[in-house]
Amino acid sequence: MSAVGRLFHPRSIAVVGASSDPGKLIGRPIAYLEKHGFAGAIYPVNPRYDRVGSRVCYPDVASLPEVPDVGLVLLGADRAVSAVEQLARAGAVGAVVLASGFGESGEEGRRRQCALKEAAGAMRLLGPNTIGLANVTDKIMLSASGAMELDGFVSGSVALVSQSGGILGSLLSRGAARGIGFSKLVATGNEADLDISDFVDHLVDDDATSVIALYIEGVRNSDRFRASAAKAAQRGKRLVAYKVGRSETGARSAVSHTGALAGSDRVYDALFRQLGIIRAQTFSDLLDIPAALATGRLLAGNRLAVVTTTGGAATLIADNAGLADFSLPAPDETTAQGLMALDIPDAALDRNPVDVTLAGLRPELFRTVLSLLSDSPTYDAIVTIVGSSALGQPDLVARPVIEALARTTKPIVAYVSPEAPHIVNALNRAGVPAFASPEGCVTALSALRAASERPARMPAIEPRSGAASAAGKHLGDGPLNEAESKALFARFGIRPVTELVTATPDEAQAAAHRLGDGPVVLKILSRHIAHKTEVGGVVVGVVPDEVGARCRDMAARLGGESGGDIEGFLVQERVSGGVEVILGVHRDPQLGPAILLGMGGVAAELLEDTALRPLPLMPGDAEAMIAELKMAPLLHGYRGRPRADVAALRAAIEAFAEMVWSLGERLREAEINPLFVLPEGQGVKAADGLVVLATAT
Amino acid sequence: MSAVGRLFHPRSIAVVGASSDPGKLIGRPIAYLEKHGFAGAIYPVNPRYDRVGSRVCYPDVASLPEVPDVGLVLLGADRAVSAVEQLARAGAVGAVVLASGFGESGEEGRRRQCALKEAAGAMRLLGPNTIGLANVTDKIMLSASGAMELDGFVSGSVALVSQSGGILGSLLSRGAARGIGFSKLVATGNEADLDISDFVDHLVDDDATSVIALYIEGVRNSDRFRASAAKAAQRGKRLVAYKVGRSETGARSAVSHTGALAGSDRVYDALFRQLGIIRAQTFSDLLDIPAALATGRLLAGNRLAVVTTTGGAATLIADNAGLADFSLPAPDETTAQGLMALDIPDAALDRNPVDVTLAGLRPELFRTVLSLLSDSPTYDAIVTIVGSSALGQPDLVARPVIEALARTTKPIVAYVSPEAPHIVNALNRAGVPAFASPEGCVTALSALRAASERPARMPAIEPRSGAASAAGKHLGDGPLNEAESKALFARFGIRPVTELVTATPDEAQAAAHRLGDGPVVLKILSRHIAHKTEVGGVVVGVVPDEVGARCRDMAARLGGESGGDIEGFLVQERVSGGVEVILGVHRDPQLGPAILLGMGGVAAELLEDTALRPLPLMPGDAEAMIAELKMAPLLHGYRGRPRADVAALRAAIEAFAEMVWSLGERLREAEINPLFVLPEGQGVKAADGLVVLATAT
Repeated sequence: MSAVGRLFHPRSIAVVGASSDPGKLIGRPIAYLEKHGFAGAIYPVNPRYDRVGSRVCYPDVASLPEVPDVGLVLLGADRAVSAVEQLARAGAVGAVVLASGFGESGEEGRRRQCALKEAAGAMRLLGPNTIGLANVTDKIMLSASGAMELDGFVSGSVALVSQSGGILGSLLSRGAARGIGFSKLVATGNEADLDISDFVDHLVDDDATSVIALYIEGVRNSDRFRASAAKAAQRGKRLVAYKVGRSETGARSAVSHTGALAGSDRVYDALFRQLGIIRAQTFSDLLDIPAALATGRLLAGNRLAVVTTTGGAATLIADNAGLADFSLPAPDETTAQGLMALDIPDAALDRNPVDVTLAGLRPELFRTVLSLLSDSPTYDAIVTIVGSSALGQPDLVARPVIEALARTTKPIVAYVSPEAPHIVNALNRAGVPAFASPEGCVTALSALRAASERPARMPAIEPRSGAASAAGKHLGDGPLNEAESKALFARFGIRPVTELVTATPDEAQAAAHRLGDGPVVLKILSRHIAHKTEVGGVVVGVVPDEVGARCRDMAARLGGESGGDIEGFLVQERVSGGVEVILGVHRDPQLGPAILLGMGGVAAELLEDTALRPLPLMPGDAEAMIAELKMAPLLHGYRGRPRADVAALRAAIEAFAEMVWSLGERLREAEINPLFVLPEGQGVKAADGLVVLATAT
Repeated sequence: MSAVGRLFHPRSIAVVGASSDPGKLIGRPIAYLEKHGFAGAIYPVNPRYDRVGSRVCYPDVASLPEVPDVGLVLLGADRAVSAVEQLARAGAVGAVVLASGFGESGEEGRRRQCALKEAAGAMRLLGPNTIGLANVTDKIMLSASGAMELDGFVSGSVALVSQSGGILGSLLSRGAARGIGFSKLVATGNEADLDISDFVDHLVDDDATSVIALYIEGVRNSDRFRASAAKAAQRGKRLVAYKVGRSETGARSAVSHTGALAGSDRVYDALFRQLGIIRAQTFSDLLDIPAALATGRLLAGNRLAVVTTTGGAATLIADNAGLADFSLPAPDETTAQGLMALDIPDAALDRNPVDVTLAGLRPELFRTVLSLLSDSPTYDAIVTIVGSSALGQPDLVARPVIEALARTTKPIVAYVSPEAPHIVNALNRAGVPAFASPEGCVTALSALRAASERPARMPAIEPRSGAASAAGKHLGDGPLNEAESKALFARFGIRPVTELVTATPDEAQAAAHRLGDGPVVLKILSRHIAHKTEVGGVVVGVVPDEVGARCRDMAARLGGESGGDIEGFLVQERVSGGVEVILGVHRDPQLGPAILLGMGGVAAELLEDTALRPLPLMPGDAEAMIAELKMAPLLHGYRGRPRADVAALRAAIEAFAEMVWSLGERLREAEINPLFVLPEGQGVKAADGLVVLATAT
């Protein structure tokens, strides 16, 4: 068994720094282990006591009668380091360190965390600054979380990996109240050793786990995170992530909480999309979505039947469902006839929501209604509404729904309109995902639809960009000039506009004539002028005969200060038609380089109409990036315009990504702006660009 | 006392169609009246029984020993009409009709609803298709809602007016569970007589009510709704509205639920903004926001102190707070010193969130921390986090918070991280708004900030546009041509571009020379060609000498089919610079005419960058519309562009609204497209426009 596996399944536990006072934090873990029925050996270690409760208490780890599988260290930061050293020396498989005061708290804390890691040696470490972990499947609660006070944890297939211990407690208690079954929960805290990826990697192999909920403050190693997400996809297990650090205030708080570095939330968002991780937008989504996914049922389409005894709540669901692109088709004729035959007075059975009224609440009648609807080819899923009338007689609604569930493979979910936690709990336990908020209900259905549409199975990690290569070997360093930049793009397959590099105004004029008789674009060529347009280094639409004169103008204007920088003149064809886009690189301090695609033009710039993907690109990424642009319709023949060559744009994005990936650390900056996407069949043309290289090492 | 007042305070109630079986819907109301302690007279009316419970049951209304204040009619749709007639004849003040099968259900239902209204005569009517009402202040529950089964309703200052009975039950039970105190609740159902506005109008005069929550499917009379909202604003009482019908599916469901017509959700949204009504975006916001507003505390700024014993939940709040533009400044020096002096081990007291750790949870210590933070000039409000540790000892957290509340006038709110409904309940009852979702907590704080910034007091209803006038008297009918349209705009103060109307190509050429030597814009003049550009009826940038020839071209091209329609040629100055916007009219079937402001250009069109306000405009509306445009920065000197004349645009919006308002039903369509907003000080110019008039009556 792996070390992580052993943390979830310890045969023996040393509780270092244990107290016999369950009112204290350090008194809790043993009480919780006992309360929830841990069957293995528990060894309190504390030189101040002879006994802790009914157990012998040992003065130190060395005195223990056996090598414990796991050490749970409850000591303060300073003493925790030596306890970890003792556990490692004794040969424990893993240690869990609860204390804070490490990497999250300044320079001294960071040094202490290094010492802790060193003390652990080959022994694996959970924490520091964690509340521990819980194996609900096997009722092993190795945690100090106050949530362990509760009873009635339901064993189920939702796992939670949280970087925060408090959040673990929060979700555990909320899940328990709602009847959502957990398999394993772990708080990774400062992740001095084991991190979120280690636990995802383990849990995708856990038979008891089908969905993994993640609470993320910051991913410390994005390569390992990618690998664990890919493994989850291969195993067909879904990841659902809630991530804080969406605002600066939140990011700062996260840093001081577990020392996680935030990185840009936009890049995280792109990373989740890339890896097929479903992002929970609200905190409650982090329970609602896994609860729906855990049923394992597929939502094959977007057609819902809403069945209700109360109009208002059904309208609430219908309204939210419509916003999420679900449809509520009226019952087909066969189904409508079947419903009518039930002869429910005053019921509205020829429409959707189907209102059976209170008269339809008789169990056998309601079960028949549910069966008719779930048998109907018109519907992909059933939403049943629990109204206030159920408050007095909860079974009246719950039982028929639970029974109907067994007769169909379609998802059946419930929205509980009044405050009725007992009904939510009963339904969830019976496998009917039940929601107390209409938004949560519809969000969970949307996630189910998305998960059903896109099977989790990813084609392994076969990035569209290859491994870092020696592509940059023959390049110089520092900024390239525009022509050199575009030559580099061209080496990776991105065609530049037709252009000629010339040394003198006369050469430029001759070149313009060689390009044809039409007006050309004329630019100063210089690796040191980054913003040519702003200093008057670009003239658009110059007729060939005037090219020489305009070159002399430009040289005179720019020559004063930076005459030595002018390397010549660039004579380019003038591109007309086509849609302008921008391709660039965004470097995230935490998640590495990402490709940025932006729509051109001032409106797009103002609205930040861009799409992002961290490298390496995955199959489908380029296409998805294009689709994410708000102004994407401009590429698809908006209002009679020609359709743009989207296939060529896709290829250009992938080529650009390939370039960035291959050049690795050599590439400091790269941008194509604008890249013209010409009408279908005509490809793309890079009209301007910029590359800055680092010195080769 | 008004009829609506009497419905909330009946001295005697006839329950028509009562049953002694409390398991049936018709058995509930008397049971609920008794359960919650109604002290007045209850008269069951049902020819089938001699007694209902311990009470004498009367065969009909005429046999009652006194005229009841209110009749609660539990009969089916058909028999309800005659019951209402009897009640009216007897002289009851009001009747409540629960049955459905009226206006919401087809032609027959609509006829029945007319009959019901007629039967009521001068007697006021709540419903049909309602679940009744509840006066929590005085414990008079005149309702069949299953939510009345519950105990422990808290009396408070939140009123609810809901168009759905089921939603009333849902919110009542949810509020009760959370300890949110209600004053009055009413479900208006089909609103055959009394509607949402009648109840708002009444409740703003109710001393027990400070905030009114609205659940809206569709406003039947927008003038009366406006008036009641204005009255609420004058009384300083806040309205918070959740409205369904945001999606087509939801709108359709609402129609079949209570027969409410939906109207466009965008216009509703604009109406709410205009009237200072806070819109609840999620269903739970409809409780969360009123709960915060009901404290009556003002949130003077956006600086929050977050105090916690658990890092994760504090980060969750910090992150959401940041997204909502709150800041979490670190404690000022005095406050930090005060905190440090408390000597709490391992606490993080020099930052925000302020983490007092479990050690800081001792009641007297925690109270001191809260006092220091609420006394600090650095903070406008305090958010206290309740962690899982409180599960075992809820008072440890709740009591100090409640005590701290008494020592400050600043808002103190709580986010409860674990599932702990008892703690949420206790805090809310004690006046500390407590939230189980981080989003709800921050949304409520945002609403509190908005409400504190914008005092509810509206300057009465003094619309910027005057009453409908005889402005259209001298106009013709049908479409106006471009020149006539712009002349109409000019009469209301919107300056057109300089232009000359000419009859022949030669006249047009002469006119072009009179405008100056520069290129002009040339247009065909015709009231029958709505889309001149698309048929080649517009040429931009014609030098004066070529104007005659181009006119002849246009006439030849367009003359074939519609030669008779050409009224001449329009010669216009060519406007350069400036930002193009569009002004138009949107007519909502339910809410009447609205002014639409849009940014010009293809990107803006693609993204529907528009702002909307129903008429009459209120002071500040024009400014707010401009601010709502996503591309508004283009008007304010984006990236070195000149600042546009926003004051002139504001005036133009108001002038256009004035025109639409004055012309009333005469105006079928009106649009200025484009309206050039020139650089500051240079005003606006209408470059093209369209007006269609209805025949004068």
